[in-house]
Amino acid sequence: MQKHIISALVANQPGVLAHVAGLFSARGFNIDSLAVGETEQPDLSRMTIVVAGDEAILEQVRKQLGKLIDVVKIQDFSGVPCVERDLALVQVHAPAGKRTELLELVSIFRARVVDVGPSDVMIELSGTEDKVEAFLDLVRPYGIREMARTGRIALARASRE
Amino acid sequence: MQKHIISALVANQPGVLAHVAGLFSARGFNIDSLAVGETEQPDLSRMTIVVAGDEAILEQVRKQLGKLIDVVKIQDFSGVPCVERDLALVQVHAPAGKRTELLELVSIFRARVVDVGPSDVMIELSGTEDKVEAFLDLVRPYGIREMARTGRIALARASRE
Repeated sequence: MQKHIISALVANQPGVLAHVAGLFSARGFNIDSLAVGETEQPDLSRMTIVVAGDEAILEQVRKQLGKLIDVVKIQDFSGVPCVERDLALVQVHAPAGKRTELLELVSIFRARVVDVGPSDVMIELSGTEDKVEAFLDLVRPYGIREMARTGRIALARASRE
Repeated sequence: MQKHIISALVANQPGVLAHVAGLFSARGFNIDSLAVGETEQPDLSRMTIVVAGDEAILEQVRKQLGKLIDVVKIQDFSGVPCVERDLALVQVHAPAGKRTELLELVSIFRARVVDVGPSDVMIELSGTEDKVEAFLDLVRPYGIREMARTGRIALARASRE
């Protein structure tokens, strides 16, 4: 099923998130990823939601989202030229003898080492989902101890004209 | 009020997000930022929640979160040495004559230009919240056209021993 990236500008108030999440779960949509962050307007947040599911049902959800008082604007980035990014923090098992190899991967992917312990290295990587997944596939054999990912955010390209 | 970064490992199922969000909003907590992303286990997601609020009430919320069947583990990073990161995509107004100045800022902050249009530049930046805010303060005078932020993710440092 095609994945949809939906971006919603919402009022920055208690309860909005529970409302929006409830709309999706009421129809059995599992949210693949969700990122809620500040915008330039202090009273608005932007929610970026990635879901996979039936197009017709998703259309209903989008319409209902649009009717919520706290939702100011909705965009669906499916088929729209956009830049999408995902951020991951990954703690990888890397005793001293393995570090050089790992640092080569970090450099190839333009990732960044953000912490080094006696037997672990913490790496920060941002990019498209494909890039993040490709990097994770390569470091997995070393042993991923812990990982946090932000989920995707997206903005439409201005260069599309 | 002190901000708390709460990280929860949760079952990757419809409804969990609405549940968790509901627990916070029922007590009037506004979530500053929220990031929900995949983990190394396909059936688990990690939610990173940033909230500010009364410590005693937050303690109640943490306990109630811990009782939800779908919540596997909770950590509060307050006072714990951790690495935290936030990712922003920012579309900045930058006609040709302003681009050089702007690119200097991009380079100083180790940000990345991800798209260029006739009068706009889209920039990707990751870092601590302070760093992201400092960058936004500097590019704001150019005109921020659109912005998406992931909200913070965090992992405890292995180097803390």
